[in-house]
Amino acid sequence: MRDVQSREDSRGVELDAAGIADLRCPIVILDRAREKQHTIATISMSVALPSTAKGTHMSRFVEIIEAHRGEITMRTLPRILAAMKEKLDAPSASIDVAFPYFLEREAPVSKARGLMDYDCRFVGSTDGTTHDFVLSVRVPVTSLCPCSKEISDYGAHNQRGYLTMDVRCASASGPESWVWIEELVEVAEASASCPVYPLLKRPDERHVTMQAYDNPVFVEDMVRNVAVRLREDARISWFKVHARNEESIHNHAAFASSTWTRPS
Amino acid sequence: MRDVQSREDSRGVELDAAGIADLRCPIVILDRAREKQHTIATISMSVALPSTAKGTHMSRFVEIIEAHRGEITMRTLPRILAAMKEKLDAPSASIDVAFPYFLEREAPVSKARGLMDYDCRFVGSTDGTTHDFVLSVRVPVTSLCPCSKEISDYGAHNQRGYLTMDVRCASASGPESWVWIEELVEVAEASASCPVYPLLKRPDERHVTMQAYDNPVFVEDMVRNVAVRLREDARISWFKVHARNEESIHNHAAFASSTWTRPS
Amino acid sequence: MRDVQSREDSRGVELDAAGIADLRCPIVILDRAREKQHTIATISMSVALPSTAKGTHMSRFVEIIEAHRGEITMRTLPRILAAMKEKLDAPSASIDVAFPYFLEREAPVSKARGLMDYDCRFVGSTDGTTHDFVLSVRVPVTSLCPCSKEISDYGAHNQRGYLTMDVRCASASGPESWVWIEELVEVAEASASCPVYPLLKRPDERHVTMQAYDNPVFVEDMVRNVAVRLREDARISWFKVHARNEESIHNHAAFASSTWTRPS
Amino acid sequence: MRDVQSREDSRGVELDAAGIADLRCPIVILDRAREKQHTIATISMSVALPSTAKGTHMSRFVEIIEAHRGEITMRTLPRILAAMKEKLDAPSASIDVAFPYFLEREAPVSKARGLMDYDCRFVGSTDGTTHDFVLSVRVPVTSLCPCSKEISDYGAHNQRGYLTMDVRCASASGPESWVWIEELVEVAEASASCPVYPLLKRPDERHVTMQAYDNPVFVEDMVRNVAVRLREDARISWFKVHARNEESIHNHAAFASSTWTRPS
Repeated sequence: MRDVQSREDSRGVELDAAGIADLRCPIVILDRAREKQHTIATISMSVALPSTAKGTHMSRFVEIIEAHRGEITMRTLPRILAAMKEKLDAPSASIDVAFPYFLEREAPVSKARGLMDYDCRFVGSTDGTTHDFVLSVRVPVTSLCPCSKEISDYGAHNQRGYLTMDVRCASASGPESWVWIEELVEVAEASASCPVYPLLKRPDERHVTMQAYDNPVFVEDMVRNVAVRLREDARISWFKVHARNEESIHNHAAFASSTWTRPS
Repeated sequence: MRDVQSREDSRGVELDAAGIADLRCPIVILDRAREKQHTIATISMSVALPSTAKGTHMSRFVEIIEAHRGEITMRTLPRILAAMKEKLDAPSASIDVAFPYFLEREAPVSKARGLMDYDCRFVGSTDGTTHDFVLSVRVPVTSLCPCSKEISDYGAHNQRGYLTMDVRCASASGPESWVWIEELVEVAEASASCPVYPLLKRPDERHVTMQAYDNPVFVEDMVRNVAVRLREDARISWFKVHARNEESIHNHAAFASSTWTRPS
Repeated sequence: MRDVQSREDSRGVELDAAGIADLRCPIVILDRAREKQHTIATISMSVALPSTAKGTHMSRFVEIIEAHRGEITMRTLPRILAAMKEKLDAPSASIDVAFPYFLEREAPVSKARGLMDYDCRFVGSTDGTTHDFVLSVRVPVTSLCPCSKEISDYGAHNQRGYLTMDVRCASASGPESWVWIEELVEVAEASASCPVYPLLKRPDERHVTMQAYDNPVFVEDMVRNVAVRLREDARISWFKVHARNEESIHNHAAFASSTWTRPS
Repeated sequence: MRDVQSREDSRGVELDAAGIADLRCPIVILDRAREKQHTIATISMSVALPSTAKGTHMSRFVEIIEAHRGEITMRTLPRILAAMKEKLDAPSASIDVAFPYFLEREAPVSKARGLMDYDCRFVGSTDGTTHDFVLSVRVPVTSLCPCSKEISDYGAHNQRGYLTMDVRCASASGPESWVWIEELVEVAEASASCPVYPLLKRPDERHVTMQAYDNPVFVEDMVRNVAVRLREDARISWFKVHARNEESIHNHAAFASSTWTRPS
């Protein structure tokens, strides 16, 4: 049976990426307590294609995921990328694994417990020599407007916001240098007006209402609060922070972002 | 050239609907001031199919839309439905036209003006004898939680909410009995804690902050406030109201709904 | 602390539903082999609200989900609905649990295995006397156009389609009467031009290409093929079938649907 | 009334962007025939924020859009960006205007006419000295798999694909150097297996079925076919091409991309 993909190509156009997207599959990841968490990932995988190769073999991406289905984590991603590069005979390989991650959160007063969901992504790539890994975590928070509070006799508009942190670590030397999703959630929640909770009883609702009123922040403030904290973490070599407020007084959103590289 | 769709079918299965969906096209609609508004519609059209007909002729739906491109409104929908029924030789025909509608809104203090967008739908059907038409309007609003206000020493959580009203009118006798999108927007805004605006200067922000604090509503209250107003409007024979709050203290939404038919 | 939700309401408006939506949480469901499958659900829960009650207690919905987190299935849904009705002191309760479900599929020639994802939903309600349960499964398939095949000298346009089946069973008497997700997947795949696979090697691609060409179907045909099969299944008392083709020759979709109730 | 946004900030964090997103508004754009086209835009606008400024004034973004509502095009974008930079006293300003654009397309045999929708974006920025403008056009096409065709005795799987071209022009010297949306649509359609049409009668369907079968392309081929054409256009200084196939034999997509800068 002829292998059309392996034919020569003469158009002289290198491809940055050829691969598959929107592949959904169940994966197992690790949480900070070193226990397994089952979740569902949406995966994009690709390789670079030299100008002389007509096409890549898309089915091999799925085979590689099937072979690693038991665990897709910061620990196994280097092996997955190496397998992609080798089995597709490619100069470089990239992967993007998006998944919801769940943490049990305790209400501030009643201590009632429930699971909160955070949208996370592992984004990795390798060219055989250098390896890159970015962890991305999106944390829903409450933000209360400082301007609204200051200019009004009472009340202040507030809303759900989202803090997204993309983080690159200084070295991939081992688990001791990893930044955990849990740590980024804590940074985000401490940088907003108040955390968002899955389950709040009335004494908790009173608590978060006043906590938010006591800690007003603009989207600009949330980004800066996160940035200050991440710069202090020596494990982190680069980050991008993005804040978005689903404005309660408008039908559009407000946003801010900042990118930073640790000076060498 | 053979007409496969027109063949006989022997499986004995009638179809409620056979048609097209997600057809986008620019349309012109009327606003209350009888002026034209250009917008973009996403259209779904279908006919019922008797058990004996193998298929419908999908291209004719597009031809009918092309023929009526100049205006798709409550005024022209009966003609479009009649054309569908006739050209596709069908027992009944249905159409769903979804579009953003824009109204100029004035900020409460500064009187600054800007355009607000409202997601609307015209849903119509006919079987040749009876004709049905539902107008649907989704209005973004501010909602402030009565419980949070009452149990807290200061502040109150609030958020963007959406009030969706589906309305059927008593008779299709003429323009004098039509309910306007503008009227439903007014009903929704009066039923929430505060309207949402495209453009607010600082004195306006102070105004809406305090207006929302002075008018706390649950999703249940918003639905009931709308329901009371719509029942009082003799033109309306049936409605469904749905309220949804993008909760600022949770990562999930709260909702409520009510359906009502005018007693005959 | 005052309980605002429990106050009397005098507006005289009953609510069909008051509840929460878009709550994400990990759940465990059963597959046909009686083994556990971990997945992520998006849940909507509500109760009806009499005209005299001001509001429902939204936090209790989350508490109920937390209490049943270990398993949300056809087996536990009656208990969850009963708990909702009781803890919220409501005349009726409803739940909608949407989740991706995964099945290992074998390629037709190479027998290569991979996981396929199917969007499913459990929709249940109770008023204490009658109980309702609908299973919904969406199956991606390949559909090849009979008209295109017949009028062309070679080739035929084809595309990804989706067959969605909502099914109500005759009795909730026990596991022996349940329709499994796996069974509906088989019905859908047998009703289309060809199944869709996660992993196909070249001999498999040749096989599915020709299988699709040998089995052309319109959206109307897919709906009827499913309908004929479901009518023959005595366990099923009601169904709705919906087919949608992401047309490869247009930028819009084609669809068809049929609803059926078993004559008593 | 105090101006909280204008206060000093001491955290030492510069922001890449502070602004608004998801603002919807009707706009007028130009088409190649120099006639007006009414469409609906979704707009994101932001300015960079020096480390010393606490916040930006979000309402001014909306005021600027209101002032330019009559026309948002390549011609007016420089003025809008200059107004943003000035009114917000910012070192740089950025805007992203996404909108559907419609072109009348003629069926290949019957010459039946209908409107096709293309998702487009204008992305511009300025720091007062350098100005950047990227035009992005997404074109739906038909793609037929070369491998499937070659290894099968008959038929070939095909599907809807999307070709997205982001293009930067060599100079912003004037309208004579602009690349038109219409030109990019033509490039994309000539690079796929067959164009996608809004309206096809049976002789047209026969034509496009055979045209696609005669012109099989992988996602890699579509990217390269576009790349070769765009490199030959001396007006273009940079581009990114992305192709995506909604695979008809899988439930995931295939994609490829290539980025290119004209050597100076």
